Amino acid sequence: MIPFHEFSSHNIVKPTLIIHKEKAIANIHKMHLKAQSNGVLFRPHFKTHQSQTIGRWFRDEGCSAIAVSSVDMAVYFVADGWKDITITTPINLLQLDQIYNLASEIQLNVVVDNMFSLSQLAKGLNTSTGIFIKIDTGSRRCGMLPSMIEEMKAMCNLMKENCYTHFEGFLIHSGHTYRAEVKEKITQIYETDKIILTELKSRLSQYCEHDIIISTGDTPGCSVVDDLSWADEIRPGNFIFYDLFQWQVGSCKAEDMACVMACPVVGVYPQRNEVVIYGGAVHFSKDRLLFNGTEVYGLSAFPESNGKMNINEQGKLIRIWQEHGLLSFPSELMKSISPGDILFVFPVHSCLAIDAVRNVISSEGHEINVIKY
Amino acid sequence: MIPFHEFSSHNIVKPTLIIHKEKAIANIHKMHLKAQSNGVLFRPHFKTHQSQTIGRWFRDEGCSAIAVSSVDMAVYFVADGWKDITITTPINLLQLDQIYNLASEIQLNVVVDNMFSLSQLAKGLNTSTGIFIKIDTGSRRCGMLPSMIEEMKAMCNLMKENCYTHFEGFLIHSGHTYRAEVKEKITQIYETDKIILTELKSRLSQYCEHDIIISTGDTPGCSVVDDLSWADEIRPGNFIFYDLFQWQVGSCKAEDMACVMACPVVGVYPQRNEVVIYGGAVHFSKDRLLFNGTEVYGLSAFPESNGKMNINEQGKLIRIWQEHGLLSFPSELMKSISPGDILFVFPVHSCLAIDAVRNVISSEGHEINVIKY
Repeated sequence: MIPFHEFSSHNIVKPTLIIHKEKAIANIHKMHLKAQSNGVLFRPHFKTHQSQTIGRWFRDEGCSAIAVSSVDMAVYFVADGWKDITITTPINLLQLDQIYNLASEIQLNVVVDNMFSLSQLAKGLNTSTGIFIKIDTGSRRCGMLPSMIEEMKAMCNLMKENCYTHFEGFLIHSGHTYRAEVKEKITQIYETDKIILTELKSRLSQYCEHDIIISTGDTPGCSVVDDLSWADEIRPGNFIFYDLFQWQVGSCKAEDMACVMACPVVGVYPQRNEVVIYGGAVHFSKDRLLFNGTEVYGLSAFPESNGKMNINEQGKLIRIWQEHGLLSFPSELMKSISPGDILFVFPVHSCLAIDAVRNVISSEGHEINVIKY
Repeated sequence: MIPFHEFSSHNIVKPTLIIHKEKAIANIHKMHLKAQSNGVLFRPHFKTHQSQTIGRWFRDEGCSAIAVSSVDMAVYFVADGWKDITITTPINLLQLDQIYNLASEIQLNVVVDNMFSLSQLAKGLNTSTGIFIKIDTGSRRCGMLPSMIEEMKAMCNLMKENCYTHFEGFLIHSGHTYRAEVKEKITQIYETDKIILTELKSRLSQYCEHDIIISTGDTPGCSVVDDLSWADEIRPGNFIFYDLFQWQVGSCKAEDMACVMACPVVGVYPQRNEVVIYGGAVHFSKDRLLFNGTEVYGLSAFPESNGKMNINEQGKLIRIWQEHGLLSFPSELMKSISPGDILFVFPVHSCLAIDAVRNVISSEGHEINVIKY
């Protein structure tokens, strides 16, 4: 591994996301162990990294089942040999042909949350496909309310009548853990999920050829909740890198964050203790968080001589434009910064940063290919 | 042109930004006329579209000088025959070799705002290169304060001594017009700019071989301020498409907005009057604005049978995730929306949307290539 403090000399000339491979693999391993100890399948969500290269790190860990969030993403990972994929967002009826193709190639699971979409899907299917009903346990994004039991039964009946639609179980994404702020609230959300899903499972068990599968998994929940054994599989994604948001919500420690943006300094303004970097919304995204009362798009990281990268809460990315960002620093740190330096910044949201940025390298200095549709 | 209401049948199956070519060309023409009537050079900023195809629409209008915001963007447009380019952000010292190469190929102008960067640049230059000093007239992003006259003179002396660095003038980006909220404030900002720049011009005129060039140009200012004749060139970018932000600040009318995102509906939730679309932060970006007290990432557009696309302020994109977004609608509009439909949404910030989204087509149905570095 290249020590982070040596990266400025490794031909970084523009905004570059550095993936700390050792930390990422440690995060994968830790989550895999947690799944095993809970007796649940580990089905990592690949929307976070969107990279065949990084996908292989999971394969090396022993994973063979994955989750993605679009048909295109599924196609991309099928091309690298993945054969058991769940598309976790409600099916896009405008891509049914591609879904039918995928279903004929691999073990495909799709998600529905209404009768109309299910019946449209069922019409043209001619290969066995796993179907999950998405349940809204409180995030109010997608999913059927737990009370819609009669509609669920009707959907299960439709699946029974069609020889290709296999009712697999319930899928939830408790995205409201992202707004939970403290660990205790995340645990409470999972307690509620457990009650809701256990009840649904018992009420619809006769419609499933096997035990109904409960699929859950957002990174805050999977990171902080100890008991996941009531579920059958977990699908966290962000945990491979974590980020400032996850750190703030308590999902990880600062040292678990496995990606950092390296950005050239283009302007230094000592009269206002601010630095402008080449690195903006098209690299970090515009995701932000409230940090000690200040809205930030990132926090600076300082490499230590031992190769570690520690968070420096005093360097705040407080404004961001298309290509550039503005960091504020205490005056004593300003003296050491000049145009042409590389500054390191932890992103608020690693999923969006790796999607936005053009250059991604591993801590070994290798380029990492990320899907750019 | 394909009427917008027919687009759903034109093979749109995933989030797609539709560029209304006629409106975009009308916006270009209008701004060009304004530049001409003010006697200033029209140097459009190509960071907004980042597309060789769209760049040619400007060439057809008669433009030959352009602005970009990164070295890579300059290289991309040089490849399509552009020969007079200003990189408007302070030079990135880590890309000096590429800057030297560009300077040997085309008429290149770069921007500096400190002696250190200028002297580093000058060391290796071996072709004539235009240099603009960036002035901070109030945006507090990059640039020298107008009071730093002695440092500017020292920089001008350095440029005089070096036979390749040609002092061209002052470049400003009054980005604080974006926070001005009302037209009157934008006009006030330009009045102040005029006073500052006229003063600087007179004080440093002896350092320039020709009349000092004053380069200005943000979209709000160039759109609403009538008198731009005190400048020598304008560099607006966003005006080609405009967007909800520009509409809100008063830069354009709703009918001037020349791009709209087409998104498949994947979920309909009548109990909460909400619709989930395939279309999220990786398509719209996470830029947002406060609209009638609600934070929105977009507003819905409804195609009319005459082919026009009108803004519908009642459909609000109020939540957004990586791949998906949530629109709220009045209940009477909910009835007409089903999974598999295409909804149209005006983005808050067109520059970031076109950068983020993968699929861009013109209103003629042609794919538009956008740089993906």
